[in-house]
Amino acid sequence: MESPTAPAPLAAASTAPAAAIRVGIIGATGYVGGELIRLLTGHPAVEVMGITGRGRRGDPVGTVHPHLATTDLALDSDLGANVDAVFLALPHGTAAGVVPGLLDRGISVIDQGPDFRLHDPADYPRWYGFEHPRTDLLDRAVYGLPELHRAALVAASEGRERGTSALVGSPGCYPTATLLALAPLARAGLIDDLVVDAKSGVSGAGREARAEMLYAEVNESVRAYGVFGHRHTAEMEQELRFLACGSGHGGRRDAGIDFLPHLVPMTRGILAAAHVRPARPVSQDELDGLYRAAYDDEPFVTVVAEPPATGHVLGSNHARVYVRADERTGRVIAIGVIDNLVKGAAGQGVQAFNLLFGLPETAGLEALPLAP
Amino acid sequence: MESPTAPAPLAAASTAPAAAIRVGIIGATGYVGGELIRLLTGHPAVEVMGITGRGRRGDPVGTVHPHLATTDLALDSDLGANVDAVFLALPHGTAAGVVPGLLDRGISVIDQGPDFRLHDPADYPRWYGFEHPRTDLLDRAVYGLPELHRAALVAASEGRERGTSALVGSPGCYPTATLLALAPLARAGLIDDLVVDAKSGVSGAGREARAEMLYAEVNESVRAYGVFGHRHTAEMEQELRFLACGSGHGGRRDAGIDFLPHLVPMTRGILAAAHVRPARPVSQDELDGLYRAAYDDEPFVTVVAEPPATGHVLGSNHARVYVRADERTGRVIAIGVIDNLVKGAAGQGVQAFNLLFGLPETAGLEALPLAP
Amino acid sequence: MESPTAPAPLAAASTAPAAAIRVGIIGATGYVGGELIRLLTGHPAVEVMGITGRGRRGDPVGTVHPHLATTDLALDSDLGANVDAVFLALPHGTAAGVVPGLLDRGISVIDQGPDFRLHDPADYPRWYGFEHPRTDLLDRAVYGLPELHRAALVAASEGRERGTSALVGSPGCYPTATLLALAPLARAGLIDDLVVDAKSGVSGAGREARAEMLYAEVNESVRAYGVFGHRHTAEMEQELRFLACGSGHGGRRDAGIDFLPHLVPMTRGILAAAHVRPARPVSQDELDGLYRAAYDDEPFVTVVAEPPATGHVLGSNHARVYVRADERTGRVIAIGVIDNLVKGAAGQGVQAFNLLFGLPETAGLEALPLAP
Amino acid sequence: MESPTAPAPLAAASTAPAAAIRVGIIGATGYVGGELIRLLTGHPAVEVMGITGRGRRGDPVGTVHPHLATTDLALDSDLGANVDAVFLALPHGTAAGVVPGLLDRGISVIDQGPDFRLHDPADYPRWYGFEHPRTDLLDRAVYGLPELHRAALVAASEGRERGTSALVGSPGCYPTATLLALAPLARAGLIDDLVVDAKSGVSGAGREARAEMLYAEVNESVRAYGVFGHRHTAEMEQELRFLACGSGHGGRRDAGIDFLPHLVPMTRGILAAAHVRPARPVSQDELDGLYRAAYDDEPFVTVVAEPPATGHVLGSNHARVYVRADERTGRVIAIGVIDNLVKGAAGQGVQAFNLLFGLPETAGLEALPLAP
Repeated sequence: MESPTAPAPLAAASTAPAAAIRVGIIGATGYVGGELIRLLTGHPAVEVMGITGRGRRGDPVGTVHPHLATTDLALDSDLGANVDAVFLALPHGTAAGVVPGLLDRGISVIDQGPDFRLHDPADYPRWYGFEHPRTDLLDRAVYGLPELHRAALVAASEGRERGTSALVGSPGCYPTATLLALAPLARAGLIDDLVVDAKSGVSGAGREARAEMLYAEVNESVRAYGVFGHRHTAEMEQELRFLACGSGHGGRRDAGIDFLPHLVPMTRGILAAAHVRPARPVSQDELDGLYRAAYDDEPFVTVVAEPPATGHVLGSNHARVYVRADERTGRVIAIGVIDNLVKGAAGQGVQAFNLLFGLPETAGLEALPLAP
Repeated sequence: MESPTAPAPLAAASTAPAAAIRVGIIGATGYVGGELIRLLTGHPAVEVMGITGRGRRGDPVGTVHPHLATTDLALDSDLGANVDAVFLALPHGTAAGVVPGLLDRGISVIDQGPDFRLHDPADYPRWYGFEHPRTDLLDRAVYGLPELHRAALVAASEGRERGTSALVGSPGCYPTATLLALAPLARAGLIDDLVVDAKSGVSGAGREARAEMLYAEVNESVRAYGVFGHRHTAEMEQELRFLACGSGHGGRRDAGIDFLPHLVPMTRGILAAAHVRPARPVSQDELDGLYRAAYDDEPFVTVVAEPPATGHVLGSNHARVYVRADERTGRVIAIGVIDNLVKGAAGQGVQAFNLLFGLPETAGLEALPLAP
Repeated sequence: MESPTAPAPLAAASTAPAAAIRVGIIGATGYVGGELIRLLTGHPAVEVMGITGRGRRGDPVGTVHPHLATTDLALDSDLGANVDAVFLALPHGTAAGVVPGLLDRGISVIDQGPDFRLHDPADYPRWYGFEHPRTDLLDRAVYGLPELHRAALVAASEGRERGTSALVGSPGCYPTATLLALAPLARAGLIDDLVVDAKSGVSGAGREARAEMLYAEVNESVRAYGVFGHRHTAEMEQELRFLACGSGHGGRRDAGIDFLPHLVPMTRGILAAAHVRPARPVSQDELDGLYRAAYDDEPFVTVVAEPPATGHVLGSNHARVYVRADERTGRVIAIGVIDNLVKGAAGQGVQAFNLLFGLPETAGLEALPLAP
Repeated sequence: MESPTAPAPLAAASTAPAAAIRVGIIGATGYVGGELIRLLTGHPAVEVMGITGRGRRGDPVGTVHPHLATTDLALDSDLGANVDAVFLALPHGTAAGVVPGLLDRGISVIDQGPDFRLHDPADYPRWYGFEHPRTDLLDRAVYGLPELHRAALVAASEGRERGTSALVGSPGCYPTATLLALAPLARAGLIDDLVVDAKSGVSGAGREARAEMLYAEVNESVRAYGVFGHRHTAEMEQELRFLACGSGHGGRRDAGIDFLPHLVPMTRGILAAAHVRPARPVSQDELDGLYRAAYDDEPFVTVVAEPPATGHVLGSNHARVYVRADERTGRVIAIGVIDNLVKGAAGQGVQAFNLLFGLPETAGLEALPLAP
């Protein structure tokens, strides 16, 4: 059984495969789809065989993603016959209908949506409003946050080599930033009471034309949304329970999280600030030790001594994590920042894919952040 | 003694005075100074006699505030002989040396800085790093948040008419947004545990040339700062104690607040999200009643049913307040939004000034918010 | 006949009318509609009798304009019986069908759209793609740029008092910025060859949900659009001909303008840079004299010595104009900046309305710009 | 002699060198310096031996470039003994004193500043206000725009192999966007009269703390600057003369350009709009043919059919070029967009470096643009 108390060792980097891995992208016309194209066309071990969107057969990719016009891809209605893996970037409830057929054809799937992130079937009607049609697949799916579930991803890779196509539910953007910020505390059973206050750029809201997402509505304004009801809460609670289950902490770990997301006027980036009342007094030194142990060997997570900005990771698969204990109040603040479209979506999907296919975990994800 | 348990009635609006009230502005070259000029030159009962900045005697105001070039003001080194009131927008520790002389000359003072906000002398060395030179004035000063201290401002107005010049410590921007969001809960003794997570536009950082405030550094990025150490914490704790002292709640009201401010890429606006673990279970109906009672007669505070955006109050003295109870987690979230330079600074100063001089509280502050 | 060679004197400011002027707003749910509400509810001589939008009878105005929630207006399907004037903010081609009925009922009309800006009936099919249904009204309509047509607006006011309801075609945002920048040069017959390169915030594109106007599409990017085909070209050419017709300049005044607009990532503001090859060599001194003569008495136009920023006029009816001659190249650059929603739309409409109703031209428009 | 009438063929891509090319960066603490670090640490054929800034010996690079904290570079005061090439990102007038010593040590130099861009010694005092100390090197320097001077760069590469260290004056950001937009027209002798109206993100203004570049000053505002006096004018005029000299066009090619740059509220990106009155009537078909011939084989320049946005090339070395003829006015508009810090600075420097060292021209520059 996968142990939550320590990160698994990095998967040994294999040498570049003789033949490229053939991948397809379903749902390529949105923002996550565009990022998948950007990352996978630059991936040294991948050949993008086909990309699909809605009713646009044959259109050059530049018609929907002008920045990608120099690639020679076109939007098709199918992915061609032989692909090894498919990335899905579809609205919730849609992937659940598509994935089983892909798995049956021996294709491994990285689903960027929520349909295979939650293990408890009851969470789907409760948080997403639909009954999951294939609850039998929920246990097969790996929650694709490599820093928490690397061992499970490696196991799925081994299963894939034995003929069982792999299924990854790639985490949501808020949970990624939050869980990376909190994992060392959660594993140590230190979280007694938890408020997560998060701030996101607007690309997370997708590309559909909605008046409330117009530039003039979003610019020069910040607002909260989804008060006490954001769907990502379910993922966070699931994974924090998982992290804490080895800690022996009998406290409030089952209490619901007070999670409040905000929309801020920028395109990319998520900052999650976790306000923790610790289960017992904890020093900065102890925190530093916990975070160093958790992340010193991680290729994409850096623990920093000053509060990180989302701009420090823009356009990259990097995350920055910061933690601080306060003597006066006895509280702890942990902050995580990511690019919501990369480490919070497409990049994380590629990272999991790399593990599934025995590639170096950083393959295709080496780009440094873009600043200013 | 001023009662914290209920708002004082609105001061009766006097008719416009026969002669204009003569005011001066000290520290007119920064952002708050510019807002004071903008608001006071448009105030129907005010004549701006002089404005001062650093070493710019005689320069037209347009040289430092191009948007105000159509006013005929110039920067002087003194305010002329006869002013009734002075607004100060100076760095902390500076006003404390200037104010006593003004008061002695019979001039009422609205200090936009922190030097007269805190009543406990020990708070100045603790939070601001200086010994206050005139602790005898701290009790004379009124904390200029009219929604909390209208009775005290009216009393100071009466004192002024009897010959005692008035002194107002105008609240900080974060405390204004936070206290308006929390006052009904605090008065009712409902706050057991408190996290305040706030987001501010960058104009609050002032106009000094600092590399970290360059456009290219701030744009497309969000970051926390002042972790566990922001100076506005002192004001918030002082006023929350004041609000709770009549509530009979014996709980955690003296516990330090976990206050975390963030810088977001916009010029104006503050959103304070207060995460409250209530002292006892509380329903949405009860909250609605408390907030309605507190704010229905307030000219500048509107309770809203959807999470407010800072853009809804841009450029105005308005505040929007929102509160929500959650059955699942048993928690309460209260949100306040203001324009940090108006209700969070210059506008609030003018509102207190109006009360000090027996003017309609909204005089000069009638402008509606600017959107989009 | 109206003379183009000199500005008409300012209309004498009447004292405030005993009874408020009753106005209605048709098309109140867009951005220009919102600005009309904001300005007219604060206008000292106006009572807003009704506002209409599409299918929202009875909705409080705050449901579509949250920043205006503190007004007590509601969206109706008609304007009530007795209004003196109506402002229209409708898509092109729509007002032409509504205006005649209003005029027949004795209501004066300020049309913020293009349907009554152009005097040549052929311009409507050519630039806007529709045959104008009431070409007989085109000569009655005044092009509502007071700085160019104040005399005609005053004449329409006199006609209104004699029983002929007035009709104003309120100028487009680009023409306003451009014509204010160029009027002194055009009147003097100095424009030989003309390039107008303009930059606009995105609120000019309206409030309709379109994917290309999403925040994530517009942010951190600038692009040109409407290359050689923007409809505002027609207005600019019409008015530049009008201005030049008294100059005796026989040159290229009929040549088409090379007009190129750009979308820049900001909400409000237009900067029009006019690149002029002058008809004869011209000195900076001569230019300064021409611009001083044109604008020294104008309440809303300020000639500045440094290139102006759109931020200098944000939220106000002010314009800033700058002109520079260059010895090395023999060329002239003239720049105008406005807030596209105020001086470029609603504010300009109110300014013309003031002239039509004998009010001080600045009534309701006194607010200074908002900065930072 | 290098022929301006046709692009040189692409340099044949050599295979990856056995040993990495050792490079240093002088002036690594600014924005261009940061981009050089980002690009060169990811370059497959380069080893970064040292980076220098001002007085920061030993500081990890993350202290000045937090986004680059995961590299293991530190700021040194020298570059170590053996480097093959040095990139300089220094203020104008500074590189001229540093470069000769580097060349003498056999080090090839890519200067990102202006000190070696201009060939006429008189241009330095005229445009930059200093007498160039080493005018003998101006002819040795290659203007490093590969799309115009690939043959000269290849010749410099051959010289380098024979022992003469190479010197590249890497073009300015505005000239890069402008010259790419205009080169086909200029080579064909089609430019009679020229206005260049450009818009830039603020990162081009550098990283020095200046009040006018504060976020709150720049945000939500656009302004022109450097009216008739921007220093990049000199480069553009030099290169347009070079391009036209083979065209046989005897017209106005020596006339000064009317160049007007603007600052727009975004971090990266330049859009240059060139308004051309052609020397003779020209059809869209002819333009399409000229641009296709010029750019079809260029790896970084794409001719597009819709007006391009700067967001289409963000973070990449790509450029997009657009050209349009108008029958009504007889004019031509050509538009170029680039990322000012990549194709307009560091990326272009790397592109020239690749040619100097016989590498594939795209090495280290393969990243696709980042959008949204």
